[in-house]
Amino acid sequence: MKIAVAQYHFRPNNFSENFKKIKSAIAEAKEQKASCVVFPAFAISGFPPHDLLLYAGFIKKWQQQIDKILKISNGISIVIDSVFQEDEKLFHRIVLIKDGKIQAFRDDEHPADTAFFKKTNYFVKGNSGSVFVIENTEVRVCFEHELNYFSTSGSDVECCIVLQNKPFEYDVFEKQEQSFCEFAKKNRIKTIVVNPVGGETSLVFSGASFAIDAQGQITEQAPFFKEELWVFDSSNPNATGWLRTCGDRHDEISNSKSEIALVHDALVLGIKDYFKNANLKTATLGLSGGIDSAVVLPLAVEALGRQNVSVLLMPSQFSSDHSVTDAIRLAENLRVQWHVVPIKDIYHSYQKEMHAIFGDLPFGLAEENLQARIRGSFLMTYANKFGHVLLNTSNKSESAVGYGTMYGDLCGGLAVIADLYKTQVYDLARYINRKKEIIPENIITKAPSAELRPDQKDSDSLPDYDTLDKILYAHLELKQDEKQLVKSGFDATVVERTLRLLRNSEFKRKQTAPAIKVSSCTFGIDRVMPL
Amino acid sequence: MKIAVAQYHFRPNNFSENFKKIKSAIAEAKEQKASCVVFPAFAISGFPPHDLLLYAGFIKKWQQQIDKILKISNGISIVIDSVFQEDEKLFHRIVLIKDGKIQAFRDDEHPADTAFFKKTNYFVKGNSGSVFVIENTEVRVCFEHELNYFSTSGSDVECCIVLQNKPFEYDVFEKQEQSFCEFAKKNRIKTIVVNPVGGETSLVFSGASFAIDAQGQITEQAPFFKEELWVFDSSNPNATGWLRTCGDRHDEISNSKSEIALVHDALVLGIKDYFKNANLKTATLGLSGGIDSAVVLPLAVEALGRQNVSVLLMPSQFSSDHSVTDAIRLAENLRVQWHVVPIKDIYHSYQKEMHAIFGDLPFGLAEENLQARIRGSFLMTYANKFGHVLLNTSNKSESAVGYGTMYGDLCGGLAVIADLYKTQVYDLARYINRKKEIIPENIITKAPSAELRPDQKDSDSLPDYDTLDKILYAHLELKQDEKQLVKSGFDATVVERTLRLLRNSEFKRKQTAPAIKVSSCTFGIDRVMPL
Repeated sequence: MKIAVAQYHFRPNNFSENFKKIKSAIAEAKEQKASCVVFPAFAISGFPPHDLLLYAGFIKKWQQQIDKILKISNGISIVIDSVFQEDEKLFHRIVLIKDGKIQAFRDDEHPADTAFFKKTNYFVKGNSGSVFVIENTEVRVCFEHELNYFSTSGSDVECCIVLQNKPFEYDVFEKQEQSFCEFAKKNRIKTIVVNPVGGETSLVFSGASFAIDAQGQITEQAPFFKEELWVFDSSNPNATGWLRTCGDRHDEISNSKSEIALVHDALVLGIKDYFKNANLKTATLGLSGGIDSAVVLPLAVEALGRQNVSVLLMPSQFSSDHSVTDAIRLAENLRVQWHVVPIKDIYHSYQKEMHAIFGDLPFGLAEENLQARIRGSFLMTYANKFGHVLLNTSNKSESAVGYGTMYGDLCGGLAVIADLYKTQVYDLARYINRKKEIIPENIITKAPSAELRPDQKDSDSLPDYDTLDKILYAHLELKQDEKQLVKSGFDATVVERTLRLLRNSEFKRKQTAPAIKVSSCTFGIDRVMPL
Repeated sequence: MKIAVAQYHFRPNNFSENFKKIKSAIAEAKEQKASCVVFPAFAISGFPPHDLLLYAGFIKKWQQQIDKILKISNGISIVIDSVFQEDEKLFHRIVLIKDGKIQAFRDDEHPADTAFFKKTNYFVKGNSGSVFVIENTEVRVCFEHELNYFSTSGSDVECCIVLQNKPFEYDVFEKQEQSFCEFAKKNRIKTIVVNPVGGETSLVFSGASFAIDAQGQITEQAPFFKEELWVFDSSNPNATGWLRTCGDRHDEISNSKSEIALVHDALVLGIKDYFKNANLKTATLGLSGGIDSAVVLPLAVEALGRQNVSVLLMPSQFSSDHSVTDAIRLAENLRVQWHVVPIKDIYHSYQKEMHAIFGDLPFGLAEENLQARIRGSFLMTYANKFGHVLLNTSNKSESAVGYGTMYGDLCGGLAVIADLYKTQVYDLARYINRKKEIIPENIITKAPSAELRPDQKDSDSLPDYDTLDKILYAHLELKQDEKQLVKSGFDATVVERTLRLLRNSEFKRKQTAPAIKVSSCTFGIDRVMPL
């Protein structure tokens, strides 16, 4: 059976655009003689719809689209999700549409929440529905979170179609693939996992929908991070000439990619779609000469084009010469517009007013932070003036320990690398330089510094990033507590200090720009902590 | 039967302090010869514990406290919640402790999420447990979200104790009381609702635990917003001499309060506990001469004491004379320290650097916003220098329509009145002035203005606040969509514009300071929208 998977980007509250994509997918699937076209969950409404689901008009619009789909369903089976309302209760329903009729339906029997979508806020547990029959084949359709409850006992189901809605997370996506493969093997059932693609502020959906045979091997896979009507023949699984077991992605498979390459592609798509969604074109950022902004700039250029990105260099009295020269070299390598804005005079004008209140109190943290805030204010003014979006360049390590100034370097509309540890930022820099030197080598090799006071180094206040990142990963992603961290060999003083810094900087993370999520423990999404 | 309710503030991850309070509550309950002492949910761990529940060490600490409570349980029945872990699964368990033994327990059978605590992230559904017997009386204990599933058929249960964990919301708390009264009446069962008290950043718990007789009348109630061991005799419900039906709070009852008085008290406690929790003492804010900061200042003074609050007046070239004189009068009325910091020279120093890039582009929104950002930066520098917390003074109406500058007037550690519509801010101003003029009358009567350009008025860009607030309340709290709003009589153009402003300012609300929640639809907590 020829199956078409509409691996597209469907935007929340964007019914007419989404319907256009649905319509063209159906037309193209018919042209390619597919028996069936399958859509990712929330294709009609866009994902995540969040509290739009609480408004009657939104629900009605969703249902109206189904009527429009019925009219273009001659000669093809369409699998798509809808909503069903009864007595103020809302059910999430997958329907099988063909020849102008709803042939079958099935309600979500186990609505479950994720960190990025609280499904149980909106939907109740359903228990109506039946197996779908497509071209004489019994097909089971379900949402990903229902798989745990699936049983094949006594059924003739040959094939299972799973609608998934998980954003890309580098540290767990292979485990997720694995669990689908195990499901297919255990139940001896062909399984097709349908993913959306595209960026929605923090969330980036990876596409890469895939098919698994009844032995648990992945037989086909759509491309990563690309919109496509992906058509394959489920009865001829070896048509592509490759079969693979899960995790085995680095050699023979055409669309296999290394982890850092996937992260790179996720970030680029995340930036691209953020701007497309907001109908904006141009970005700016402060280029400090450090590694973080040096990595964000090429990502922005790849996503938006060099003519749509401009940068400000804002040296203070504490900036080293190499900061400016390195930054200019990077901007020149990428041929983006740059301006130098010295902040010294602005700082002095604040100092004059501060003196009336502060008297002769010595220079301290307040004055360090003020420099970052002057930069933030200037960048925002520049961004406002020309309609640019300010990209934030903070990383996850410094965000974790509160090494950043609120309303200063924490400003920005989108935090591009805020879900990458510092050591991953370096990996990404090397990946960006894989073909030629884009980021000047000196930026990659010099010791990191915030340059807010004379001769400052990050290592003055923080453990070295290799250690810090390992502790943070074990604590944040793997949920090891202080005792377990010390037991596994980390220095007790360093662990105690790191976790204290993490705890005490929670208030800063409550107000930072949305991060592009690439891990399973993104601040502001996955991790919820009392202040 | 004499029952003691330990209506205290229990802080997350604060085991030793919480245990001290538990210990002293047990001792005092014994002294007062109570048969039983009941604690609010999460008394041991503090509420909300959030992702602390994902760490093994936290769970262990919780269980260890139970062992300590066992040792001080001679001669009194203690009802308190704990956790039970089995095969990686976590159950939320209420235990009855007496004479050194766990006499009975009951697991949460229907864990449910709220906007402020995702219980199902941590706990699974339990089904073990039994009715508690205290002084020969069968008592049913449960969490508030389990009440829907409660059935008395065939049981001898006389009394139901409900552990609640809902923060104060002015628009729904009477409805909640009502539903408990209906429950009691329908099941002909005495019901005791146990609430915690205290502020946890955004959440303010109101206390006001209460007892309902089997006819559905509230017979006793603990005070609002006050820590207390509240002891009453459930067999002599009329001891206080009053009985009331729900909603009937304005006359005969000693602790009855008007809605605005409750909101006032919630905000004061919210501020007070925010500082206490963070072990901080002093606050600052920018006093503009407008109504918002004029209302926040007396609240801060009441919470922290006048000696712990100081303010900056930061006039620009567009500030009217009355802004400064009104603000000074207010500061003098409250006898708080104030400084005037003109921002004109700082603005000019930015302008000099801007000119190199902006050329002769005319003054516009970017420059308006810059003034707000200079104020934000200066306030933060002042706050950092002296260890003050900057209080944010934005209100819900302007937050809803995006009438505020990110990193400018949206700065701050805690947004005191961000959950109050502008019209409510005026109500609160009048309440604050109920005994004498604290807020100068001119601040209350003059037309609101941001004063970022010559002769600016809020009404230049926004519908009048009376209309705006009504539309917003109907849309946000009552979930009416555009069509319904127009149908109910609002002008279609105004509705369309208001909802567009609301949609387009979502990105600003992602980065604002945590608001003290007083409504059922607080931005950043209850309302989740795609960007």
